[in-house]
Order: sequence, then C-alpha cells, then structure tokens
Amino acid sequence: MKKNIKMIISYDGTRYNGWEHQQNTDMTIQGKLEAVLERMIGGGDSDAFKKSGSGVTVIGAGRTDAGVHARAMTANVILDTELTCDEIRVYMNRYLPDDISVNKVTEASDNFHSRFNAKGKTYRYTFWVGDVKPVFDRKYVSVLDKAPDVGKMREAAEKLIGTHDFKSFCGNPRMKKSTVREVDSIKIEESGNYIRLYFHGNGFLQNMVRIMTGTLLEVGYGKKKPEDIEAIIEGKDRQLAGFTAEAKGLTLMKVDYE
Amino acid sequence: MKKNIKMIISYDGTRYNGWEHQQNTDMTIQGKLEAVLERMIGGGDSDAFKKSGSGVTVIGAGRTDAGVHARAMTANVILDTELTCDEIRVYMNRYLPDDISVNKVTEASDNFHSRFNAKGKTYRYTFWVGDVKPVFDRKYVSVLDKAPDVGKMREAAEKLIGTHDFKSFCGNPRMKKSTVREVDSIKIEESGNYIRLYFHGNGFLQNMVRIMTGTLLEVGYGKKKPEDIEAIIEGKDRQLAGFTAEAKGLTLMKVDYE
Repeated sequence: MKKNIKMIISYDGTRYNGWEHQQNTDMTIQGKLEAVLERMIGGGDSDAFKKSGSGVTVIGAGRTDAGVHARAMTANVILDTELTCDEIRVYMNRYLPDDISVNKVTEASDNFHSRFNAKGKTYRYTFWVGDVKPVFDRKYVSVLDKAPDVGKMREAAEKLIGTHDFKSFCGNPRMKKSTVREVDSIKIEESGNYIRLYFHGNGFLQNMVRIMTGTLLEVGYGKKKPEDIEAIIEGKDRQLAGFTAEAKGLTLMKVDYE
Repeated sequence: MKKNIKMIISYDGTRYNGWEHQQNTDMTIQGKLEAVLERMIGGGDSDAFKKSGSGVTVIGAGRTDAGVHARAMTANVILDTELTCDEIRVYMNRYLPDDISVNKVTEASDNFHSRFNAKGKTYRYTFWVGDVKPVFDRKYVSVLDKAPDVGKMREAAEKLIGTHDFKSFCGNPRMKKSTVREVDSIKIEESGNYIRLYFHGNGFLQNMVRIMTGTLLEVGYGKKKPEDIEAIIEGKDRQLAGFTAEAKGLTLMKVDYE
C-alpha cells in the first residue's frame, strides 16, 4: 500500500557533502536516508533494489549546503510498505549513522510535498566570541577573535527585513529563477560567549543565510555601515554583499507548514 | 625565571587515551600539553628539547580515563620562561588541537600542586533517554532506551554519601593505597531527555564515578535495590557493585582548592 511518509530529521552536517545526493559520493543526507529506506522495503540490498527500478526518492524541504546542520529538517517519501510509522522510525534509526536521526514519522496526505508546501523556515547562525576555544561546540559555531558591534548588526538586520530581490545575497551566479524572497524576522541574541542570529523567511536562496550573516558581521566590524544595506540590495550584485560565513555555524531549526 | 603556572583546561576526551601520558601513544591530554609547552620554551622542536633533559611535566588534578571529558581540569607546570600568563595561554591555544582548550593561565605560589592541593572535585555523568538519537550530543552522553526509576536512583545515591571504604567501586584490582573516600553529594537532575548525575567528593578512585553510575542505573532498572548499597559497600568486592558506565558520558566539571 503506497503511503506518503513525512519525517522530521536532525543531522550533524560535519561529515556530509550537503543534503542533496550526488553522483560521486554516498556522503549526503538524502543519499543515506534513501539507502536505508531501500534496504527496508527491498529487504536488504539497496543497490539491487535501486537497479530494479524501485529506488525511492526522499524530498527535503530544502537543500542544506555541505557542513550545514539541521535540528528539524522536514522530508517526505512515497513508500509501498505495510510497516507502521513507528516501525519505520525505529528501523531507520537503527541503520542510519549516529549523526543522522529520524525524530518523528507520520503519514501525510497524498499531495503533501515537503518543499512545495513549506511556508517558512527558521535558520540559526551561531558565533562564538573569545580566545577561549569552544571545545564542545567546535563543530557547530564559527569562532570570532573579537566582539562585533551587535547594535550595528541589529540596525543592519532591520534593513534586510521585507520582501526584496535578494540577488546580491545569492551564492548561485547562474540562478535563472526569481531571486525575490521575504525575510520577516532576524533576531540577534547575545548570551555569554555566543552570538546567535535567527532568520525566518518564506524561503532562502543558495548560501543566502550565510551571505546575510557575513554581511551583518562586516557591519559589526565597521567594514560596512547599516545604511549600506539598501544599496547592496538595490545593486543586485553578489560583489556588493559581504563574505559567505562558514557552513558549520549554520543550523536549519524548523520548517513551517499550514 | 622559574614560575609555577596554573592552568584551567577543557577537553573533549573522545580521541584521547586519557589524561596521563603513555609510552605507546602521543594521544593523551598530558602529552599534548607537554609537547606544546616544550615547543614554546625550547623554541620549536619538542623532541630535541626533551632529549636535552629539559622536558616539562604537567601535573593534573586527576587522571581522567580514555574517552572522559573535562570542562575545567586544573593542572600546573614549572616553567622557566619570560612569557606572561596571557602569552602562554594564547600560544598554547594556537598550537593545541581544537578539542583541547586552555581557558585560564595564572601564576601560582611555588608550593601549589594541582593534585595534592585539590580539596574536592565535581563530576557529571549524562544519560540521554529515548529512541530519538542525540545527534549533537552523541559524544557526550550515554544513551538509554528506556527511562530508569530516578526516585529509586536518588534513594540509592543517598546511601553512597559519606566517608566509606569504596573498594567495591574501584576499577583497579591491584590498588595498594587506601580506598577510603568521602562523597559529600550526589544530585540527580532530569531535564527533557537528559538525566544528569552530579558527584562531589574529596577524591575518586579509578573508575569510581562510572561504577557508582552503573550501580545507580541498575537500581533504576530494578536489578538492584537502594537498600543493597550498604552491603555492596560493606563487602569491599568489585563484583558486588554494578557495571562500569561508559566513559563518554562522564565529564570532570570542576576542581576545588582552598
């Protein structure tokens, strides 16, 4: 019986070449999930099952870059199986590596599509400030030697909020589709050695959160001014925005659906 | 000028064969610290410096087992150097691997000895309960499939508190010295999926915290009863106590001095 299975997944992206499966590597999150599901419904051998033309496709709400983490990625997959949702979850967690976890499995309606139906996403970017090294968080934060001016960063962040053409913040120079997105909130929290940036929007372009983060950090260090943001957006030129903050500081926190 | 340098150190013990340096491996915390300090005061080549008879010895407050972590290990070392404490800290953090951090360096009195002068230590043992995998904490927790009875564990913990001969909780069967120690508090906290056990005492025998933890867990699962603890202590026999909980759940949190 065909079911549309919805999954909430956490992963530590450190070892992986991103979400999307690729020809040259089996080290992708999508690839790992599909291999385990094919093994589950095919009865053991994922390769033979795939060759029979019965491979499965896991659709993720977004395609995280290499090294980016997720606390709650949403994905769905059409499966022909008699297993219950709980049996699927237990099976997957048994065979997935330690750095990928399936937290929740439910049956969705036939037309649920984790990417097309996503209404919003929350990303968090984490900086660690100081010359004491973040031993236990070292794979999940980007280290800054000196503190940026967070007040200035907040001023600049306000100017990013809204519906804009974010072409200047798009990491894909050959992007053909619309680069208009709505960012409805950017919150910047300071707590001890941490500075955490929370971005919420209806969708993000390739590297967009990391480029916004890099740009805000340049404002925090006085290399750019909050009032430069408008011209950066207007210019629609990647060269105008700041650097791309490193992947390991970024985590997809949540995907919203209606 | 000879100085007695006191250091507060954090480390992720995952990759290391424990604190104490050993003949067959350079993957010990003490070994890594000494190599960096020898490089610092010898001007580059740690091996040549050591061969000249000028090797340094870092004294730790305790010798953590392979795989055990520390948030604040205290250590001291006699160094003949003109460098300031801050210069020493910055140098060490530059050359130490990412999973070892020197958080604080101060000059101590000549007779300060991090092991002999330690008045107390706090260890934390962390369990993660549930079939959702702890993706981001996986190297720092021990996973339990089902929840133990924490009330019973607390009852049993009360009976461990006090000054006792902890021979039954000593992992070294050839221990020649006194096995009497004082444990003055054991606190067990539940928070979400976590169960955290905090142990404070004047000192702990080899594996003692891990054996106490394993014994308390067996009480939590009904394999032992809180009222068995007295007989386990009285028996002075390692066979009477519970299993040795795995290293990765254990962290040295703090060392107390007068």
